[in-house]
Amino acid sequence: MQTLLIDNLIQKITETKAPIVVGLDPRLEEMPSTLTQEAFAAQGQTLQAAADIILTFNKAIIDEIHDIVPAVKPQIAMYEQFGTAGFEAYLNTIAYAKSKNLIVIGDIKRSDIASTAEAYSNIHIGKVKVGETEIEVSQTDFITLNPYMGYDSIEPYLKDCKQYDKGLFVLVKTSNKGSKDIQDIITQNNRTVYSQVGSLVSNWGSGLIGQHGYSNIGAVVGATHPGEAEELRKALPNTFFLVPGYGAQGGSGKDLKNLWTKNYGMIINSSRGITGAYKKYQMEKDFAKASRQAVLDMKADLEAYMP
Amino acid sequence: MQTLLIDNLIQKITETKAPIVVGLDPRLEEMPSTLTQEAFAAQGQTLQAAADIILTFNKAIIDEIHDIVPAVKPQIAMYEQFGTAGFEAYLNTIAYAKSKNLIVIGDIKRSDIASTAEAYSNIHIGKVKVGETEIEVSQTDFITLNPYMGYDSIEPYLKDCKQYDKGLFVLVKTSNKGSKDIQDIITQNNRTVYSQVGSLVSNWGSGLIGQHGYSNIGAVVGATHPGEAEELRKALPNTFFLVPGYGAQGGSGKDLKNLWTKNYGMIINSSRGITGAYKKYQMEKDFAKASRQAVLDMKADLEAYMP
Repeated sequence: MQTLLIDNLIQKITETKAPIVVGLDPRLEEMPSTLTQEAFAAQGQTLQAAADIILTFNKAIIDEIHDIVPAVKPQIAMYEQFGTAGFEAYLNTIAYAKSKNLIVIGDIKRSDIASTAEAYSNIHIGKVKVGETEIEVSQTDFITLNPYMGYDSIEPYLKDCKQYDKGLFVLVKTSNKGSKDIQDIITQNNRTVYSQVGSLVSNWGSGLIGQHGYSNIGAVVGATHPGEAEELRKALPNTFFLVPGYGAQGGSGKDLKNLWTKNYGMIINSSRGITGAYKKYQMEKDFAKASRQAVLDMKADLEAYMP
Repeated sequence: MQTLLIDNLIQKITETKAPIVVGLDPRLEEMPSTLTQEAFAAQGQTLQAAADIILTFNKAIIDEIHDIVPAVKPQIAMYEQFGTAGFEAYLNTIAYAKSKNLIVIGDIKRSDIASTAEAYSNIHIGKVKVGETEIEVSQTDFITLNPYMGYDSIEPYLKDCKQYDKGLFVLVKTSNKGSKDIQDIITQNNRTVYSQVGSLVSNWGSGLIGQHGYSNIGAVVGATHPGEAEELRKALPNTFFLVPGYGAQGGSGKDLKNLWTKNYGMIINSSRGITGAYKKYQMEKDFAKASRQAVLDMKADLEAYMP
């Protein structure tokens, strides 16, 4: 049996006893005002200032939580919106998280035809070729993908997953309310689109199963739909779940109680609930310490409902 | 009746008699070697060199085709793969195309929950807020989106479409082979997923219909599936189509002959078939002039099968 990235993730979850990924989705308007005001005073209200604030904020959070969680998940949109400076802050956040030994899940949700998917795969989990030179632009471990375009839109990533021991989390049943519009469509054989997509994702990952019985190719399954998640948990025994929707989006430890399986089987994301915890705890000056406390609180909430 | 972006697109198509969008999907390995070798000699095989080559190439193409086509469609993955330098080349390509009066379709195929979709919308078709300052990072007119996450994942873009007169092309039936895996699933009511998604997209765009009877919210429908495209054409009279799959992917003017409707009703993309035409015509030194010839050839092929 091969030891794969997914095994490393499970090992880190087991060591920290925290099936938790901290979402790094920085929002300027939710940042401690001391941080933003200082940067605006020095640099003006510019894209570069925004990017610098984000990176400073993320580094402080990472410093406080890297020893108690296995992974972080930067949401690329929150960086991309600040243009090239923001894109650089995304790459620098990943580099900093890797330097602290965290597993990084790049939340990019890309989708495109094969020749284009190759380009996305190159930068996010593979290598980019310039002339004869191969460049590793990002050290991201896992990325999220959207499956709507089908197998050949995922295949180029599978190649890099195999070659560089990287992983994917493919959208199956997402945490938002609108997920019902397409994902819940009932199919002719009396299944649902999300259930059929779940089966596809499981097939796509069948060649990349590690020693714990899970594949490097996982699924995104929202905490906000416990019934659907339970159904998927039973149907997909070799698929590790990335679970968004905990905390700010409404999901709680109780909603997850029937989903735990051998070696956890899933990792739960919380973004604002952790990085914005300083408001709840009234710890603006020590915002990063507040995020550490929020992780410990989340861990306790999850443990209370674990078998 | 309001005059909207979609009306401007139709007007430009009518003026140029070219329902053609030139896909700017630069691939270093397909570039004229004089261009790449010169940049590598000066800057080394670096991400910045790659980005500079791309921008030089795109500007030359745009200079040659801007008066004979209504629009260009940069595929962001081909830029994003070169990191921050590449991302900057994407934005600069758009700015250059806008300076030449072209309509720009940003092929980004993003998808995410509402709070994240807002960030994507901010940079690509809206404005980004830094403190009290609102910044327009990109002048893109239309963007492509993936609908798998449903209405609330599209809604934030609709707001910007309304406020800034921008548009969307939402994936319905894509041009790739794997599009069958999810899009062709038969539903309980004996329709298909793509057909139901088509209806959703039409509803989402019902508040943004311009004077030609088409909405700013269009659909992506591949030229490589003429039967399915014809079915969608009939079902969605108010939806303008962006049609990929012509040329390098196998679609031809003949495949499109039953799809033309009032005011064209669609715009056909060709990427490599146009930007890489210098190889076919053996015009490496005049690669941009070859792309002009390829546009004229494509126009003739389309016209031959128009009603």
